[in-house]
Amino acid sequence: MSSHDIFIGETIGTAILTLLGGGVCAAVTFKRSKAFEAGWVAIAFGWGFAVLTGAYLAGGVSGAHLNPAVTLGLAIEGGTKWSDVPLYLVSQLFGAMIGAVLVWLAYYGQFHAHLTDREVLAAHNGSADDEGLVDPKAAPEAGPVLGVFSTGPEIRNMVQNLVTEIIATVVLVLAILTQGLNAEGNGLGVLGALITALVVVGIGLSLGGPTGYAINPVRDLGPRIVHALLPLPNKGGSDWSYAWVPVVGPLIGGALAGAIYQLF
Amino acid sequence: MSSHDIFIGETIGTAILTLLGGGVCAAVTFKRSKAFEAGWVAIAFGWGFAVLTGAYLAGGVSGAHLNPAVTLGLAIEGGTKWSDVPLYLVSQLFGAMIGAVLVWLAYYGQFHAHLTDREVLAAHNGSADDEGLVDPKAAPEAGPVLGVFSTGPEIRNMVQNLVTEIIATVVLVLAILTQGLNAEGNGLGVLGALITALVVVGIGLSLGGPTGYAINPVRDLGPRIVHALLPLPNKGGSDWSYAWVPVVGPLIGGALAGAIYQLF
Amino acid sequence: MSSHDIFIGETIGTAILTLLGGGVCAAVTFKRSKAFEAGWVAIAFGWGFAVLTGAYLAGGVSGAHLNPAVTLGLAIEGGTKWSDVPLYLVSQLFGAMIGAVLVWLAYYGQFHAHLTDREVLAAHNGSADDEGLVDPKAAPEAGPVLGVFSTGPEIRNMVQNLVTEIIATVVLVLAILTQGLNAEGNGLGVLGALITALVVVGIGLSLGGPTGYAINPVRDLGPRIVHALLPLPNKGGSDWSYAWVPVVGPLIGGALAGAIYQLF
Amino acid sequence: MSSHDIFIGETIGTAILTLLGGGVCAAVTFKRSKAFEAGWVAIAFGWGFAVLTGAYLAGGVSGAHLNPAVTLGLAIEGGTKWSDVPLYLVSQLFGAMIGAVLVWLAYYGQFHAHLTDREVLAAHNGSADDEGLVDPKAAPEAGPVLGVFSTGPEIRNMVQNLVTEIIATVVLVLAILTQGLNAEGNGLGVLGALITALVVVGIGLSLGGPTGYAINPVRDLGPRIVHALLPLPNKGGSDWSYAWVPVVGPLIGGALAGAIYQLF
Repeated sequence: MSSHDIFIGETIGTAILTLLGGGVCAAVTFKRSKAFEAGWVAIAFGWGFAVLTGAYLAGGVSGAHLNPAVTLGLAIEGGTKWSDVPLYLVSQLFGAMIGAVLVWLAYYGQFHAHLTDREVLAAHNGSADDEGLVDPKAAPEAGPVLGVFSTGPEIRNMVQNLVTEIIATVVLVLAILTQGLNAEGNGLGVLGALITALVVVGIGLSLGGPTGYAINPVRDLGPRIVHALLPLPNKGGSDWSYAWVPVVGPLIGGALAGAIYQLF
Repeated sequence: MSSHDIFIGETIGTAILTLLGGGVCAAVTFKRSKAFEAGWVAIAFGWGFAVLTGAYLAGGVSGAHLNPAVTLGLAIEGGTKWSDVPLYLVSQLFGAMIGAVLVWLAYYGQFHAHLTDREVLAAHNGSADDEGLVDPKAAPEAGPVLGVFSTGPEIRNMVQNLVTEIIATVVLVLAILTQGLNAEGNGLGVLGALITALVVVGIGLSLGGPTGYAINPVRDLGPRIVHALLPLPNKGGSDWSYAWVPVVGPLIGGALAGAIYQLF
Repeated sequence: MSSHDIFIGETIGTAILTLLGGGVCAAVTFKRSKAFEAGWVAIAFGWGFAVLTGAYLAGGVSGAHLNPAVTLGLAIEGGTKWSDVPLYLVSQLFGAMIGAVLVWLAYYGQFHAHLTDREVLAAHNGSADDEGLVDPKAAPEAGPVLGVFSTGPEIRNMVQNLVTEIIATVVLVLAILTQGLNAEGNGLGVLGALITALVVVGIGLSLGGPTGYAINPVRDLGPRIVHALLPLPNKGGSDWSYAWVPVVGPLIGGALAGAIYQLF
Repeated sequence: MSSHDIFIGETIGTAILTLLGGGVCAAVTFKRSKAFEAGWVAIAFGWGFAVLTGAYLAGGVSGAHLNPAVTLGLAIEGGTKWSDVPLYLVSQLFGAMIGAVLVWLAYYGQFHAHLTDREVLAAHNGSADDEGLVDPKAAPEAGPVLGVFSTGPEIRNMVQNLVTEIIATVVLVLAILTQGLNAEGNGLGVLGALITALVVVGIGLSLGGPTGYAINPVRDLGPRIVHALLPLPNKGGSDWSYAWVPVVGPLIGGALAGAIYQLF
C-alpha cells in the first residue's frame, strides 16, 4: 500500500465517518431538524452506517482503519507495518477534522438557531435537562453543542469512563481483526465492512449508554479541536479535562484486543 | 445496454423508488395510517429500502442509476456513455412521476381525509406545528401534503440548503462509484445494492435533518410536477421557488463526486 | 422438487412466517407484553424477519414461496409447474393456520388478560381509540384481537383497499421474480432471502399504512379461520365481509407482476 | 476441532454475547444512560447484534454455538460429537458469567446510581410501574436490576412461560441447523452469522413479549449466578424459583428442533 493510498483512503474515509457520525448527532439534537429527538436507535444506526460508508469507500484504498485503535491492534497483530502507523494516524486525525467541519456546513443554519435559542442556553446553564444529550451537570465544562462534535460521560468518573471505553473498543477491534482474517488480507471485504458496521450498531446500542462510545481517538479528538476553533456564538467550553479519556481508553482497548486475539 | 433496457429499467426502477419513498412519507404523515408518527427512523429505513428495491429490480436491466446525479457521476468517471445520458434522465423523470401517482392511488382515502381535515388545514395556515414534516413558516408556498411528494427545508436559505444537498449527494455518489468498481461493471451487484441502500439509510439519518435529503433531482422534481397536476382538494402550492435547489444541488454533488473519485 | 418437499417446506416455512408475523402484532398489542406499543418500526421489521426466517428455512426444500401470490407469479413466469400449484396453496394455507395457533400458545396468558380487560373491551365497543391497531369504526365487525391474526383497513373502502393491496403485492412479487433470476433456479439463495426480507420491511414501512399489507392471501385467510375457530372469550367477529380483499388483491398483484416481469 | 479451540471460542464468544446483550438491557434501564427508554426495538437489535458479534468472532474457532440449546440440537442432528458436548456447555456457562461481570464494569456508575435511587426502589417495592422491564408483581422475588442480568415473565405461569420459550427456541435452532447445512460444515459462515443474527432480532420482536426470550440456558443462568454473587447494594432476590424455566425450555426447544429438522 503506497503512502498516497494510505493518505487519501484514511483522510476521505475518516472524513465521511465523522461527517455522518457527527451528522446524526446534529440531526437528533437540533429542534429545527426533521430528525429532532429521533432517539438512540437513530444514533446507533447512524454511527454504524457512518462506519459502513467510510469503510466501504476506503476499504480498497487504504484498508479502511479509520481509527488509531484499529491501526494499533493491526500493528500488534502483524497486519500493518509499524512504519506505516504514523501516516495512518495523521491522516485519520486530519480526516476527522474535515468531517466535523462538513457537519458544521451541512447544519449551518441549525447551529446558529440552536446557539441563539434562549431556552437552549437557559437549560444548559442551570435548569434541569436530564434527558438531553449534553448534561450540564455531568459535563460542566462542555458547551451546548459539544455533543454534536465529541463524546461526554453521563456520570463523570474518569476511571469508570476509561473502563467503559476500553471494554467497548476491545469488542470493536476483535471484530475487525477477525474480519482481516476472513478477508485474507489487510483490506476490508464488502461483506466484512457490513458486519463491522452492524457490530458498531450493536456496540452503540449496548455499551454507548455511559460515555457515548468514542471507541476511536480521532473520532473524538478531531471534532473537539474543530469545536475549539470554529467561530460559533455562545459555544462554551470544549471540555478538555475529559478529552484524554476517549483517546487513551480506545488505544488501551485496541492493544488489549491485539493481545487477546493471539489466543485464537 | 440497449435503449429498451435503459428505458424499462430506469422507468420501472425509479417508479418503485418514488412509490416506496413517497409511500413512507405518506405513511407517517396521515393520521389514518397505521404508521402515523412512526418517526424519522421509519423515514430513513423506508427510503433506504426503496432504493434497495428499485436498484435490485433494475440492476441487471439498466444498471439501476435511478438518479441523474448518479448518471452524471458515472458519465464523468467513464462508466456510462454520454450519448446514453439523455435517455437515462428522461426515463428517470418519467418513472419518478409514475411512482408519485402510485402513492396517490395507494393512499387515496388518506389524502382525501387529510386534506378535508379542519385541524390539519388550520395548523397549516397559521397555528404553530413545529414538529410536523411540513413547516408552514419555513415553506410558505408549500401546501399541506407537498411533503409527501417533495422535499422542503426546515430553515429556508437557498445557499445553505444547496450546500447541504451537495454534501449529502457527494457521499451517495462516491459510494455508488466505489460499488461500480467492486462489481467490475456498470450494473449493481446484489450485495452492492444492499450496501448502497444502507448508505442511503445513513445519509437520511445523518444529513436529512436540514432539507429532507433529495440527493436526486428526479425524486424531487417528478413528484412535484405530479403534485401540481393532481386534482387534490385544498392542496395548496407546489413551492416552485425552492424546486431548483434539490435539482441543482444533487447535480453539483454528483459531478463533484466524479471528480473526487479520480483521487482514488 | 418432490411433493414431500413442497408440502414440508411450504407448511413449515409458512407456519414460521405467520408465527413470527402474528407474534409481532401480539407483542405490540398486548399491555402485558414487554414490546407493548413498540410501534410501526417494530411491526415492519418483525414481519420482514418473519419472511427471512421462513424463506431461509424452506428455501432449499420447497423454494420458499410461502405465498399464493408468489406461486401464481412464478407459475405465470414459468418458474413453477402449474401442476404443483394446488399442493403449494394447500400447504401454505395449512402452514399459515399452524402459525396462528402457535401465536395463541406463545401469548396464551396475554390473550386472556387482554380479552378480559374492561378498558380494552370498552374502548373497542365505542370509545374513541384512534391510534389502536384495531380501529372499531373502520372495522365494525372486527373483534378486539382480530388485528393479531388478520389485516383490516384504516379507511374501509373495498375498491381503495384492493388497489393498495395490488400495488404492494406487485412490488413484492417483482422482487421475488428478480431474485429467482439471480439465483438461477427456483429456490431462494441466502442473500436473495435477505434482500426479499428487507424489501418486505420496506413495503411495510411504505405501503402498510392503509390496509396493514396482507400481500399474501394465506397470511390473512389462515389466521382469520383460526380466529373464528379458537375458543377465545369476548373475541368478537372475524370481519368476514373484508376477508376477500386480502385474498383477491394479492392474487391480482401476483399475476400483474408476472406480466410486468415479461417486459424485463 | 481441538478442545482448546472449543474452550476459547465458546468462552469468548458467549462472553461477548452476554456483554452486549446484558449491555443493551442496562442501556435502556438506567436513567443515567444515553439510551434510557430507547424501547423494545433497541433491545431486539441489541441482542441480535450481540449474537452477530459473538458468532462472528467464534465462528471460525469453535463453530460458535454459544448456547446449550444449539449444541444439543447439533448433537442430535449429528453435526457435533456427543463427547464434545460437556466442554461446550462448561465453556458457554463460564463465558456467560464473564460477560455479565463485564456489563457490571461497563455500567458500574449506573448500577450504583440506580440501586440508590429512592424512586427506583419505591417503585420496585410496591407502586405501580406497569411499563418497566422489571414488573414487581409479575416477579415478586426479582430485585430491581435483575432484568439487566436475566429474563423474567410478564405473566407468571410456569407452564405458559415454558411453552413460549420452547416455541421461540425451536425457531432459533431450526435456523441454525439450516445454516449449518448451507455452510457445509459445523462452523458459521459469515453470511450465515448475519442471517442468524437477524433471525434473533425477529424472535425478539415477535416472541420476546411474554418472557423476554432467554432461548439460551446459559444466557439466563450465567448472569443470574453473577447477580447472586455481585456485591450490589439493595439488589434484591435473583428469582431462583423461575430460573429453571429459561434453562429447561430452551433445552426442550433445541431437542425438538433437532427432531423436526429430520423431516427436511
